[in-house]
Amino acid sequence: MTEKIVLDCDPGHDDALAILLAAGDPRCELLAVTTVAGNQTIDKVTHNARAVCTVAGVDVPVARGAARPLVREPIVAPDYHGDSGLDGPVLPAPTVGLDERRAAELIVETVLAHEPGTVTLVPTGPLTNIALALALEPRLAGFVKRVVLMGGSYTRGNRTPAAEFNILADPEAADAVFAASWPVTMVGLDLTHQALADDAFRDRVRALGTPLAAFVDELLEFFAESYARRGFPAPAVHDLCAVAAVLEPDVMTYRDAFVTVETAGRWTTGMTVTDFDGDLGRPLATSVAVGLDRERLWDMTVAAVATLGS
Amino acid sequence: MTEKIVLDCDPGHDDALAILLAAGDPRCELLAVTTVAGNQTIDKVTHNARAVCTVAGVDVPVARGAARPLVREPIVAPDYHGDSGLDGPVLPAPTVGLDERRAAELIVETVLAHEPGTVTLVPTGPLTNIALALALEPRLAGFVKRVVLMGGSYTRGNRTPAAEFNILADPEAADAVFAASWPVTMVGLDLTHQALADDAFRDRVRALGTPLAAFVDELLEFFAESYARRGFPAPAVHDLCAVAAVLEPDVMTYRDAFVTVETAGRWTTGMTVTDFDGDLGRPLATSVAVGLDRERLWDMTVAAVATLGS
Amino acid sequence: MTEKIVLDCDPGHDDALAILLAAGDPRCELLAVTTVAGNQTIDKVTHNARAVCTVAGVDVPVARGAARPLVREPIVAPDYHGDSGLDGPVLPAPTVGLDERRAAELIVETVLAHEPGTVTLVPTGPLTNIALALALEPRLAGFVKRVVLMGGSYTRGNRTPAAEFNILADPEAADAVFAASWPVTMVGLDLTHQALADDAFRDRVRALGTPLAAFVDELLEFFAESYARRGFPAPAVHDLCAVAAVLEPDVMTYRDAFVTVETAGRWTTGMTVTDFDGDLGRPLATSVAVGLDRERLWDMTVAAVATLGS
Amino acid sequence: MTEKIVLDCDPGHDDALAILLAAGDPRCELLAVTTVAGNQTIDKVTHNARAVCTVAGVDVPVARGAARPLVREPIVAPDYHGDSGLDGPVLPAPTVGLDERRAAELIVETVLAHEPGTVTLVPTGPLTNIALALALEPRLAGFVKRVVLMGGSYTRGNRTPAAEFNILADPEAADAVFAASWPVTMVGLDLTHQALADDAFRDRVRALGTPLAAFVDELLEFFAESYARRGFPAPAVHDLCAVAAVLEPDVMTYRDAFVTVETAGRWTTGMTVTDFDGDLGRPLATSVAVGLDRERLWDMTVAAVATLGS
Repeated sequence: MTEKIVLDCDPGHDDALAILLAAGDPRCELLAVTTVAGNQTIDKVTHNARAVCTVAGVDVPVARGAARPLVREPIVAPDYHGDSGLDGPVLPAPTVGLDERRAAELIVETVLAHEPGTVTLVPTGPLTNIALALALEPRLAGFVKRVVLMGGSYTRGNRTPAAEFNILADPEAADAVFAASWPVTMVGLDLTHQALADDAFRDRVRALGTPLAAFVDELLEFFAESYARRGFPAPAVHDLCAVAAVLEPDVMTYRDAFVTVETAGRWTTGMTVTDFDGDLGRPLATSVAVGLDRERLWDMTVAAVATLGS
Repeated sequence: MTEKIVLDCDPGHDDALAILLAAGDPRCELLAVTTVAGNQTIDKVTHNARAVCTVAGVDVPVARGAARPLVREPIVAPDYHGDSGLDGPVLPAPTVGLDERRAAELIVETVLAHEPGTVTLVPTGPLTNIALALALEPRLAGFVKRVVLMGGSYTRGNRTPAAEFNILADPEAADAVFAASWPVTMVGLDLTHQALADDAFRDRVRALGTPLAAFVDELLEFFAESYARRGFPAPAVHDLCAVAAVLEPDVMTYRDAFVTVETAGRWTTGMTVTDFDGDLGRPLATSVAVGLDRERLWDMTVAAVATLGS
Repeated sequence: MTEKIVLDCDPGHDDALAILLAAGDPRCELLAVTTVAGNQTIDKVTHNARAVCTVAGVDVPVARGAARPLVREPIVAPDYHGDSGLDGPVLPAPTVGLDERRAAELIVETVLAHEPGTVTLVPTGPLTNIALALALEPRLAGFVKRVVLMGGSYTRGNRTPAAEFNILADPEAADAVFAASWPVTMVGLDLTHQALADDAFRDRVRALGTPLAAFVDELLEFFAESYARRGFPAPAVHDLCAVAAVLEPDVMTYRDAFVTVETAGRWTTGMTVTDFDGDLGRPLATSVAVGLDRERLWDMTVAAVATLGS
Repeated sequence: MTEKIVLDCDPGHDDALAILLAAGDPRCELLAVTTVAGNQTIDKVTHNARAVCTVAGVDVPVARGAARPLVREPIVAPDYHGDSGLDGPVLPAPTVGLDERRAAELIVETVLAHEPGTVTLVPTGPLTNIALALALEPRLAGFVKRVVLMGGSYTRGNRTPAAEFNILADPEAADAVFAASWPVTMVGLDLTHQALADDAFRDRVRALGTPLAAFVDELLEFFAESYARRGFPAPAVHDLCAVAAVLEPDVMTYRDAFVTVETAGRWTTGMTVTDFDGDLGRPLATSVAVGLDRERLWDMTVAAVATLGS
């Protein structure tokens, strides 16, 4: 029994790893890849997504999505991902085509084309496309199996003291996604900062000896430097964790919480306010990842890269 | 030279008049009618729009739009428009079909199918569809001739002290629409409260003696009672004014202003903050209607109803 | 029967007129003058208050008050009142002393020293001192007869589209003052923009032929230029109206409303949200001045200036 | 060389311990105790403060302070401290008198009566009195040696997901205190949750065998039950830590940060936004306690209780 997923991303180094895991893990049926402005502009991340799909031999519809947030001005993250959004390795010219549909439309059509309750959405960038798809087609909330997203934090942010980048980049979209009636799993910074791609992991990747393994190593090399500047011993491969949580849910532990997004704060906009204890009197409807079995994450990632071969 | 318009509405008594003016005025080329949840639920206003198009003999694509705001919980206005959204007259069973596309998609396709700079969007409900269309296709901002919307106020609101209903119903969408680079004309309460459908106007309509005139009179009869409860001597036919402003711009006078929408206030969310004097240091990019030649508004409306015949 | 008042002000041209009316009108028993940073810094407005008291022969305690708002950074209004806060006439060296108490303490002690329900507070600047006095001594709310304040608006502001200067300068203080259990009368811009000191009024003042009349005329001369730059035909003597409303309440008409202050808006902070219709579901506990008998305002002002003699 | 402090508190079990440490530690010169509504109403916490001073033989001015926050409605914490604010032990009838001055006035006068730079303010409740004192006398910011406060958090709150009780109870006051130019040390939840009064500590207190030791044990007994209900193995003696940080600063480690208080959020009001990395571009002017040498905290506390004797 495989997991059908739509991966909505803004590659991005860790998004690239997420694509590779989704493409290479036999438990995953990747239905589509959609892009969203986030780590870089929509042009750049769409190019990157297609290039990574080309590297990985992924052959699914790839659709370009939102160029900017629902309401706010765009922000990007060159400090982590470089000017291209995927600095480090040399990217091949994409041979994977671009679907004619817009990302939100492709998401809606893909979900509606499958049995209700079988498709999981995995957003690893700002939630603009997901909110747009939901606004276009409210039935989506009842058809999607689950939304497993990388974003947010229940302690501290990374872009501001209160906010994680993906949520801050489009807080209104995130607010809509957390408020909808579909089941949501939040894989936030508290979890992903446990997924630091350390030397032991990189050694295992390099040991595969394939061109794809070298590509991954170059990604991590650049990403490690970005994180070193922020005082991290190794880079946090955030987005990879969201895909892992779909394919092998018990690679993490979870707590139920009410999660909502601050959109009105002077200093706290983009914060994922996370109530584990019911202090706010709302249902604890979101599943929040809190603990990671890191070795199993590395195991499945190495296996996926190995499977993809070149 | 006719004006091509897409009318995005939530009928609604004054929306119905807006449809009739757009349908009956020879200077107007109505390209499509789209609906949005607002005065009532999307099911009800879509039914109403189709019924009014049937009454008026309008034969253009009609598409169903957003069932709820981008982010917030829906609100409706039965206190003004009754339980059906168009209480008063008996509505015919709609013979006008429903387009298969969603409103935002129809808006995008309609605009892109015409010469750039020739299509005016006329939203007379919450701005959800317009914001969605813009988010789906950012090029829209460069292709639309102008957005002439009914909504907002530069003094006081009608649903709260600060906010007018259409803007309050989806403040994030409104924020996005006012912030985009297309030219916007705001026809708000300060203008539309000058358009009270008084007895003299109603006498002129009735004097036409057609079934359609009787239909209009029944609309106004119900609407007059709603406004009487709020202390108004006659009902304000808000949405009609927005269409009139497209067809005969000098039926109004305008002032330039910076207009933005408050989305973070404790008491003021949904307010169209309107800066005529540059106090906020932003470009005065929105045209705000301030004065109305009411007799000319009645003239063109009576003529349109007469033209539509039955 | 006289009205006992404490005048809390930031002179300011119209504050100066308010002092003169309070000092010269036989129906007024002026108990104290307190100052607050607003139109200019606390040093400047305190000097100005003492100088005006000297000119007017006022001999009551004058106390220096808050140098800055409760929470925010200070703002001043040199565009209206000049660099000194009272540009125009030559001010005499103050011979009136400065009380040793701080304004908030003087307010508390003055109110508690009189029969409960007999002292009216008349703030014509930011509400910092009044909020401080209330915070120091919560019993104040039950001892004060009424707070009759100049500030706010129920349509548009003067410093921003939404906010009037006095409220914007310390919105948290204003919020506390409107929320307290004492009766509040709001004399805002909608009223005071009806009190434009036109040539006919100025002719009457000049005709008194006294040095004080000349002083008043010089004040109005400078103030008229400030207002002319904003497109007004004559200057609005805001603060004078608040004192007038105490001494002769029926010089104005009023409507009951719920009034609260926006402190969280992105664009609307400092707005006095005014609900006449109960839309917000709160008691209509504030009396809001809406109409002015301007001629009676001029009559009592001219009489007061005449009474003060030199 | 002793440390002169004014302790501003809302006893409160952990406030009671703070009083005892301040009273019993030979390095501390306690100048005054002031009270503020917080854990319970001002009447209750003032009674409690006097009773604890009576128990401890403290003979300094005790002044009653603010009955409510600057702007908001009061909140209390009976879930932690019981209906009296200090449930558990039997309190003696206070023999310590009540100063005639209000807390804010006593704070101002006490600070101004000593050499500039010698008096430390130690607020362990909502910051209302401190903000009032600062507003009454802005020179205070230059005269106070330091403000060492218990409040806030740089990760999660205790009353809401984002806010700690003392800051949430009066966020505007807290905003003013953190923004003022005096040096501030924040001893927040991240620190005080390291100070759980476990059995080993309680054994040491009990071993003193004095009536005061029994009193402390009864306090901790009740407090332990409150914390057990929240899933804590032992009660966090928050306020004790703030006094300890004054008397023996190196009992803790600190990081510099910019700290400000969210006052406008829908969900995050009362959060102490803490920027260690300069992401917000502001000076890192606040010293934030991050690590605790718990054994030394217990040592000095046991010694102080022992010193106080009965």
